[in-house]
Amino acid sequence: MILALAGGVGGAKLAAGLQAALGAPDQLLTVVNTGDDFEHLGLSICPDLDTVMYTLSGRANPETGWGLAGESWHFLDALAVLGGESWFRLGDRDLATHVERTHRMRAGESLSAVTADLAARLGVPSRIAPMSDDPVRTVVETGEGALPFQEYFVRRRCEPAVRDLRFEGAPAARMSAAFEAALADPSLEGVIVCPSNPYLSVDPILAVPGVRAKLAACPAPVVGVSPIVGGRAIKGPAAKIMAELGVEASARTVAARYRDLLDGFVLDETDRALAPRIESELAGLRVREEPTVMRGPDDRRRLAAGVLAFARALRES
Amino acid sequence: MILALAGGVGGAKLAAGLQAALGAPDQLLTVVNTGDDFEHLGLSICPDLDTVMYTLSGRANPETGWGLAGESWHFLDALAVLGGESWFRLGDRDLATHVERTHRMRAGESLSAVTADLAARLGVPSRIAPMSDDPVRTVVETGEGALPFQEYFVRRRCEPAVRDLRFEGAPAARMSAAFEAALADPSLEGVIVCPSNPYLSVDPILAVPGVRAKLAACPAPVVGVSPIVGGRAIKGPAAKIMAELGVEASARTVAARYRDLLDGFVLDETDRALAPRIESELAGLRVREEPTVMRGPDDRRRLAAGVLAFARALRES
Repeated sequence: MILALAGGVGGAKLAAGLQAALGAPDQLLTVVNTGDDFEHLGLSICPDLDTVMYTLSGRANPETGWGLAGESWHFLDALAVLGGESWFRLGDRDLATHVERTHRMRAGESLSAVTADLAARLGVPSRIAPMSDDPVRTVVETGEGALPFQEYFVRRRCEPAVRDLRFEGAPAARMSAAFEAALADPSLEGVIVCPSNPYLSVDPILAVPGVRAKLAACPAPVVGVSPIVGGRAIKGPAAKIMAELGVEASARTVAARYRDLLDGFVLDETDRALAPRIESELAGLRVREEPTVMRGPDDRRRLAAGVLAFARALRES
Repeated sequence: MILALAGGVGGAKLAAGLQAALGAPDQLLTVVNTGDDFEHLGLSICPDLDTVMYTLSGRANPETGWGLAGESWHFLDALAVLGGESWFRLGDRDLATHVERTHRMRAGESLSAVTADLAARLGVPSRIAPMSDDPVRTVVETGEGALPFQEYFVRRRCEPAVRDLRFEGAPAARMSAAFEAALADPSLEGVIVCPSNPYLSVDPILAVPGVRAKLAACPAPVVGVSPIVGGRAIKGPAAKIMAELGVEASARTVAARYRDLLDGFVLDETDRALAPRIESELAGLRVREEPTVMRGPDDRRRLAAGVLAFARALRES
């Protein structure tokens, strides 16, 4: 089996590629960041879980990467008339996910259980789990003070300069049962750190106690895929945040950040000149180049196949 | 000022007529049954308040009488895919009302405050208040056991035979501030008991402690309008319930039921033969005939004008 660690859009795309590339899609478990989760209008909203769920069920909006294809916005228009908060875009169909999840969780179901059931009902052939069933909330320390993640990300469109990030609740959070079981599973053949934002999507997962140690100790190869291509983020604010934190916006920074966890690192062919430098700087890390920009299903599957082949090679070496 | 007591569709129509017929619409306060309210999918749903609010803002669906005109159902379709409860029809736009109300009430606002604000934002020119800010829940005792109101009304389509009705929470409920103030207002010129279901819509209002006594003691004339025309309910299960409770399905039964409260009673011209009998049986009650079936805005306004003229005549007699 293969374990993928993912945040939102970029991670979901590679997870979709892995699901397509694996002979039996139930061999894939995608563990998803929940640091973006928040309570909004009384609803429990899990943006990354939903992006992964919608992408892996083939329902994601291909233009935005998030939300559902063919979505309508009648609820949000009516909410605005009533003076409700409409800065977070909740589509009519998407809203069913939030209402049903909130309702079930209030009745006592865990986020893991709700996620597994909703994903199955949407037709996702692989498995999806949150990193934890305990609430972890990313807080962005900015030049304008501390902002809850969605305030920073959606309401303020990532404009305030990031000084630091905190993951509230992380110290007391436990890994989800599926996540913990996967890392202890002798049939685990590889862990893929998807090309998600290292600060906003992967770090919250790594902040859950036990995750770093279990990944480092895991006998299966751990392979990271760079979300930075040619010094830019494919999507989102990763490169901007790197500049604000005073580090080089480059695949090299990403590799160094994960150095204690990774056996292999995939960077875009654009960045092939960086490969020998990374291998020499980070002893023991193997680097491979692939076309990492995923424009459609074929790109996803091709990148996934390359990453899986790399993991296999690392396993056999 | 005029105080109207209303349940759902029939009551909302006459309230709309009163709003149109009064020179200054803010002279009208419509106090609405909340016995139909329930918690569904974690949302606070107030069907009668919403029907009144949508009707008085000109947004009601003219075919059904409830819900919004031009409504769409994408949320409900998506909820069904997720295995959520879809027997109660929640439209995409209507849902904004429930989500926003629930969110504000959880934050501590009263139902009265939320209702007043939502109605104003929807453009309702008159005032609307719940009968109480405390929860009252109608329970229908049937041949198949006790059913919460919406289970009986929507899910079971009023099929089980009614044996009795209970209004849970009513003994501890307090009249809403607007309701109590209206009945104590020296400028009150009339109370109109709208043609709503006596058992399901008006009785819960009358079950709130103090309402019966204050209505009976009120110096302004109290005028009831029969929801039963020619032995049938214009809409809904009133006549069916009367048969199940072993009483005659007739305007006469309605008049007798409210006898301690009413100064005047309006029945449909179809039932004019009943007028002398009711006046002789119920000493002191004055009866007037009007075309009570409201097919459109003109009918509503005409009936309202007739009812207001009747109240004026009673006041001056």
